[in-house]
Amino acid sequence: MTDKVDLNCDMGESFGAYRIGADEAVFPFITSANVACGYHGGDPSVMRSTIARARQRGVAVGAHPGLPDLIGFGRRAMDVTPEDAYDMVVYQVGALLGFANAAKVELQHVKAHGALYNMAAVKQDLAAAIARAVRDVDPGLVLFGLPGSHLISEAESVGLTTACEAFADRNYMNDGSLVSRRRPDAQIHDADEAVTRAIRMVREGKIRSVDGEEISIRADTICIHGDGPHAVEFAEKIREGFEEAGIAVRAVGRGK
Amino acid sequence: MTDKVDLNCDMGESFGAYRIGADEAVFPFITSANVACGYHGGDPSVMRSTIARARQRGVAVGAHPGLPDLIGFGRRAMDVTPEDAYDMVVYQVGALLGFANAAKVELQHVKAHGALYNMAAVKQDLAAAIARAVRDVDPGLVLFGLPGSHLISEAESVGLTTACEAFADRNYMNDGSLVSRRRPDAQIHDADEAVTRAIRMVREGKIRSVDGEEISIRADTICIHGDGPHAVEFAEKIREGFEEAGIAVRAVGRGK
Amino acid sequence: MTDKVDLNCDMGESFGAYRIGADEAVFPFITSANVACGYHGGDPSVMRSTIARARQRGVAVGAHPGLPDLIGFGRRAMDVTPEDAYDMVVYQVGALLGFANAAKVELQHVKAHGALYNMAAVKQDLAAAIARAVRDVDPGLVLFGLPGSHLISEAESVGLTTACEAFADRNYMNDGSLVSRRRPDAQIHDADEAVTRAIRMVREGKIRSVDGEEISIRADTICIHGDGPHAVEFAEKIREGFEEAGIAVRAVGRGK
Amino acid sequence: MTDKVDLNCDMGESFGAYRIGADEAVFPFITSANVACGYHGGDPSVMRSTIARARQRGVAVGAHPGLPDLIGFGRRAMDVTPEDAYDMVVYQVGALLGFANAAKVELQHVKAHGALYNMAAVKQDLAAAIARAVRDVDPGLVLFGLPGSHLISEAESVGLTTACEAFADRNYMNDGSLVSRRRPDAQIHDADEAVTRAIRMVREGKIRSVDGEEISIRADTICIHGDGPHAVEFAEKIREGFEEAGIAVRAVGRGK
Repeated sequence: MTDKVDLNCDMGESFGAYRIGADEAVFPFITSANVACGYHGGDPSVMRSTIARARQRGVAVGAHPGLPDLIGFGRRAMDVTPEDAYDMVVYQVGALLGFANAAKVELQHVKAHGALYNMAAVKQDLAAAIARAVRDVDPGLVLFGLPGSHLISEAESVGLTTACEAFADRNYMNDGSLVSRRRPDAQIHDADEAVTRAIRMVREGKIRSVDGEEISIRADTICIHGDGPHAVEFAEKIREGFEEAGIAVRAVGRGK
Repeated sequence: MTDKVDLNCDMGESFGAYRIGADEAVFPFITSANVACGYHGGDPSVMRSTIARARQRGVAVGAHPGLPDLIGFGRRAMDVTPEDAYDMVVYQVGALLGFANAAKVELQHVKAHGALYNMAAVKQDLAAAIARAVRDVDPGLVLFGLPGSHLISEAESVGLTTACEAFADRNYMNDGSLVSRRRPDAQIHDADEAVTRAIRMVREGKIRSVDGEEISIRADTICIHGDGPHAVEFAEKIREGFEEAGIAVRAVGRGK
Repeated sequence: MTDKVDLNCDMGESFGAYRIGADEAVFPFITSANVACGYHGGDPSVMRSTIARARQRGVAVGAHPGLPDLIGFGRRAMDVTPEDAYDMVVYQVGALLGFANAAKVELQHVKAHGALYNMAAVKQDLAAAIARAVRDVDPGLVLFGLPGSHLISEAESVGLTTACEAFADRNYMNDGSLVSRRRPDAQIHDADEAVTRAIRMVREGKIRSVDGEEISIRADTICIHGDGPHAVEFAEKIREGFEEAGIAVRAVGRGK
Repeated sequence: MTDKVDLNCDMGESFGAYRIGADEAVFPFITSANVACGYHGGDPSVMRSTIARARQRGVAVGAHPGLPDLIGFGRRAMDVTPEDAYDMVVYQVGALLGFANAAKVELQHVKAHGALYNMAAVKQDLAAAIARAVRDVDPGLVLFGLPGSHLISEAESVGLTTACEAFADRNYMNDGSLVSRRRPDAQIHDADEAVTRAIRMVREGKIRSVDGEEISIRADTICIHGDGPHAVEFAEKIREGFEEAGIAVRAVGRGK
């Protein structure tokens, strides 16, 4: 399909005295940082310092808004209305915009976090609310989402540029959705295989589903995990893999 | 001194299911709304609707950042560092900026809330941090503060436009500071007297202190209280008083 | 069925500077106060003063634990695990137990709040977790729930005493569940009719469903609303109605 | 002075997805665990599991209530009233009591955290409020405090049993207070020296101040740090040091 790809990673999810994620070690390998905005993780001080480090590394900065559930790290679905979702996204993207202004950095994108991301993939009204929120704060922001999800289609329908996110280390269903984490075959454990799959997704727009079927997938940006025992190793491998394959690794850039 | 004045009021301090303040009734009489940003009061939904109403009324919008102390309504001093203060102001002003962008309203000013306002009046390093935060988010924002306070001098030294805030219903010390609320003579209870004093502060830049001395005071904006039994009556009286005295009541406008 | 009934009301849901509910006016008419515990509403100071007032009035005190969602007032369903539910109930009931100890008041009961109550009515594992939490903190606590709900059956299976809660001002389905608030006929608007229905539920254990069918219902305690324009009037009417009908209005008492 | 001592450590300060402290590794060496209660750190799930582990290890359990400042980890002084302090201590101790009941463990003690501990050491009204709160929840609880502090004297005046806490790795002023952390000589960096000092504090009730003066100090319990690079090593060393010196290491037990 294409010969370039973005590597994004959730960053700045530490909070107060609490440290989480291997931000420092992962930064050299990514091109877009999804910065937590204080609802599911992150705090004002962490937001500032994460933007500063991203800027120093030449990594593009995006907002990573989540549900107001610090204790659950934004991973528990909540029955929020589209209005709630709109408001919480405007609030969090705005807060990060404050720090971006202060650092003279332009926000590149928005990627919803955890349960908010998953809920918006399948609920059209939530997806539409989030897309409008992003567009209303800044129409040049790029919205990240699963290919084929409501987030992508709603973002396009309000005129936002989108980036489809793929997962190198996850198996896919025939319909292009991710295999549920409850299944034992949800993940690709072999790093080399994951890299090979990622390259194919980017270059050919194809992936073999968990049922062995060849499916189409648009992969503008690959999600790199920032924690877990092998996060850094995997980040390094995938970056090298792309470079060796002659695929340019670079940020998606701003829309419009 | 001058023949114009701004009337500001803290607005949008309701939270979730909780209502506080007489926003709707006070709006017709003010020219600048200080909108709470979620730390001491306010929430994303209230922020959005408060900006919408301000816009409808032609009232200028500013951010009203406070300490992260919802249970104490931002009224309890906290031993925050200048860095903490910087970060919490950027965060909150940024969050409101998100809603301002969405409503296509330009933020006019920032007024710190409660204990943050009082601490910054007397602590130079806090004042300097807040002034830098405001300037870094948007150098066109006007910073409100007590005349003679560190907030005003630090704001000026980083190049911000400032607005000196005066209180029509409070007594002043000889040095221009407010009489402590712990003293029985802290407040002016007679509304007519308060109006007369306010007019004199604006027009002549003078006020008689609690000790009977004539002191100078710069009053660019008068603080209107949004709650209490007589808030609305007082707001109406002071607005009428100024208009009858031929003093233009209008928002301070943006700096630079 | 019986000639006595308890009247319960959610109390102490104010928070910090925010006031909600007509606690003071409703207290004379109720026999059991469900005291919010700080998660969906309430704060430590409000908890203390609510218990003090309940004690003064001779009203029994119970815990009213909710989801950790202050901004949504505990009304938004959250995808919490049974373990989450167990822990949040132990925490909140324990916190209220601290104030009960301090006031030398014995806690009588627990009534889950809002979305937690509704979720536990239909999810057996959540109901079981809540029942165990209550029993583990104090096996003499009475657990309130909808008649026929999982909360009641799970409470009984862990050996707790239960109290079935009925709603005088709500219509019922044939299966004993409440008519959804989304339907226009969810509520009984006429106070006299509500009183008549309540008396019949208590005395005969019967109610006419929204479809005109006669259904059985166990009504140990009637829920009185503590806010809304007619809350106090309704509380007074129902209390008088019961007394005139010769039905003793008294707290459910402690189990075991 | 005595031939026994308690070793206490702050435990259970993890929160949600965030891990902090080396609880697992430190547990074998301590006799009293100060369990965070959700205000400055800790959450209901962590409270439950920390009590379970303490019980398994035979370690006594106490409450570690802090200021409501998760982002600041309870380390920033806040201008709370004595009533605020009373209420927040009752709430937090009560919440832990819920989990203690559920685990059939008796709470042994209360140790205030961070800024609350430090503020109460020097403000008599705060100390008195905290002492009353602890006594009102359970008069058998032992209150920990700095020797000579208001916490100790106020606890005694309301009839609580107290335990004076000493720090093996901190220098002391002539008046028995700790050398400020801002001074370069605040800490004892050599572990062996710290152990020797601790043994002398317990056995002789004496310590050499930072100015070389011999001062009296009552050391019922020694604070073990649960984090930092050498926390576990130090915990092990001090435990061994006491045992080799023939000083019994055991929990303070309950009062009355």
